[in-house]
Amino acid sequence: MTATVVPLRPDRVPSLKPLMSLVAAGMNDVNRVILDRMQSPVALIPELAGHLIAGGGKRLRPMLTLGCAAALDYAGTRHHKLAACVEFIHTATLLHDDVVDGSDLRRGRATANTIWGNAPSVLVGDFLFSRSFELMVEDGSLRVLKILSHASAVIAEGEVAQLTAQRMVETTEDRYLEIISAKTAALFAAACQIAAVVAEREARVEAALEAYGRNLGIAFQLVDDAIDYVSDAATMGKDTGDDFRDGKVTLPVILAYARGDEAARRFWRHAMSGRANGEAELAEATARLHATGAIGDTHARARLYGSRAVDALALLPPSAAKAALAETVEFAIARAY
Amino acid sequence: MTATVVPLRPDRVPSLKPLMSLVAAGMNDVNRVILDRMQSPVALIPELAGHLIAGGGKRLRPMLTLGCAAALDYAGTRHHKLAACVEFIHTATLLHDDVVDGSDLRRGRATANTIWGNAPSVLVGDFLFSRSFELMVEDGSLRVLKILSHASAVIAEGEVAQLTAQRMVETTEDRYLEIISAKTAALFAAACQIAAVVAEREARVEAALEAYGRNLGIAFQLVDDAIDYVSDAATMGKDTGDDFRDGKVTLPVILAYARGDEAARRFWRHAMSGRANGEAELAEATARLHATGAIGDTHARARLYGSRAVDALALLPPSAAKAALAETVEFAIARAY
Repeated sequence: MTATVVPLRPDRVPSLKPLMSLVAAGMNDVNRVILDRMQSPVALIPELAGHLIAGGGKRLRPMLTLGCAAALDYAGTRHHKLAACVEFIHTATLLHDDVVDGSDLRRGRATANTIWGNAPSVLVGDFLFSRSFELMVEDGSLRVLKILSHASAVIAEGEVAQLTAQRMVETTEDRYLEIISAKTAALFAAACQIAAVVAEREARVEAALEAYGRNLGIAFQLVDDAIDYVSDAATMGKDTGDDFRDGKVTLPVILAYARGDEAARRFWRHAMSGRANGEAELAEATARLHATGAIGDTHARARLYGSRAVDALALLPPSAAKAALAETVEFAIARAY
Repeated sequence: MTATVVPLRPDRVPSLKPLMSLVAAGMNDVNRVILDRMQSPVALIPELAGHLIAGGGKRLRPMLTLGCAAALDYAGTRHHKLAACVEFIHTATLLHDDVVDGSDLRRGRATANTIWGNAPSVLVGDFLFSRSFELMVEDGSLRVLKILSHASAVIAEGEVAQLTAQRMVETTEDRYLEIISAKTAALFAAACQIAAVVAEREARVEAALEAYGRNLGIAFQLVDDAIDYVSDAATMGKDTGDDFRDGKVTLPVILAYARGDEAARRFWRHAMSGRANGEAELAEATARLHATGAIGDTHARARLYGSRAVDALALLPPSAAKAALAETVEFAIARAY
């Protein structure tokens, strides 16, 4: 086993397109459920939710539910409603995250909290979250309800843990991995696992898809963390340096701090405390991250988790769906940065 | 049928004590579940949740679940866990409400958002909400899950609707009743209804308890609205005039505005707009509410809904539990103000 995700076709840039093509028809149904079930007689709810939901998100998590179901040759339609549940939970956490972080830009557009204020963002998040559970109850699987209610609690725990770790440059890599396993990877894992539940497959298939989603989620978050220091709003739809300005200690910073001398550590402590986090300090931070290899090694970690995600699919028979799931891992890691 | 709740014993002030005595043993179990299941390795979660949960709330909603179960002679223990679910949902909404309203005092103590900030209040609310669904899944009743997930969505809708109606003095009484039926009464209704589900009683018993809880919830909210203009922080644990300062248009204001002349309406528009809501205006508002009979008639409406709540219990056989549920209605209406 190698820590490198071997590209299926080294001649081209890995893409989300195989997964998108695979699930295109199903995603039409998922999108219909999403649009239908975010409605409410209270007009502000679909207005605010629609801003985020129509705002150009990739719908990666529900696509994973459909992709995993396809890899298991599931022929039913139950997963369409459940994929919408996953997207509702994700949307609710984004609405709350943007309030928590005071973010003003998401997917290249003004955040809902910027446009409508914090109050409706919190409450519409609560609505989508509740609506998600109503949809799960309609499906009627206690196993799915268990997986997604547990994932939701774990996500909230991870978010609080990240808040607790904010500005703490001494956060260890292990601790950081626990945090992102909870706040990001838990929903990726659940999105994939429930496909095995609706397809009524045995426990080891459930475990395999859970592992695929979890490792993909960790890789995805690590790449996001690196991107925050090397991208810009025009290409990624969010500001570079958001994490830096928020004092959010991510893996690149953890590595650079751990590898730094006393002067470097003083810089990171000072910057992450919020007392010195302007454009000049962001430039210095980025230079230090590159110089210590922290950006490159964050990507190396992402590749390791990506490799685990692909290996977790080993027990599935070869198929276009399996190949699409594998390429999705490559895509997550190779995203422009 | 009369719109007056006839006191069972006119010689004394109605009290919550009969209900409290009835459910005391069961509430020990409920409190154990609450304390046990609000735990998390992330220390801030039990710390923040515990501040509110240990902060002297009456636990009225879980007591109603237990009281209704007692009125049905239910002999099991499933309702203990479900009553804890109800309290978790309630606590989550309080945490989010205090963020939404920017409140600094609840139950006579500093709010969680004042002590820890908005961010952890939002996230710990999300955690409790998710944990509540995990507990319901453990119980395993899809019917209970349906009732409580629907109630949660309705609560969020009601909260957003109230936000939309904020500062709008032209809100009609009908519209206002829709809002409080959603934001307050839905959880009272669900708390009572699920007792019939665990006791495996027929649909008409479920409907009766739902109606009892819903009407009690409306009465409870209307009395709260009146109290906000006639109580003080020392007796009620929250500031008088909170609704006034927040521009929250409640039934007393709706009645006073509807009954007022042009000068009165100008006063209310100006006050609710937030441009004139100091102590002097609060005193004038209170005087206007009394002069127009708006406070008295808000209580009259509360008594009407209270009467409906008691009447909804008609199909239950006489019992100490039934009497305690009826006296709880009287208590809700007669709360010090």
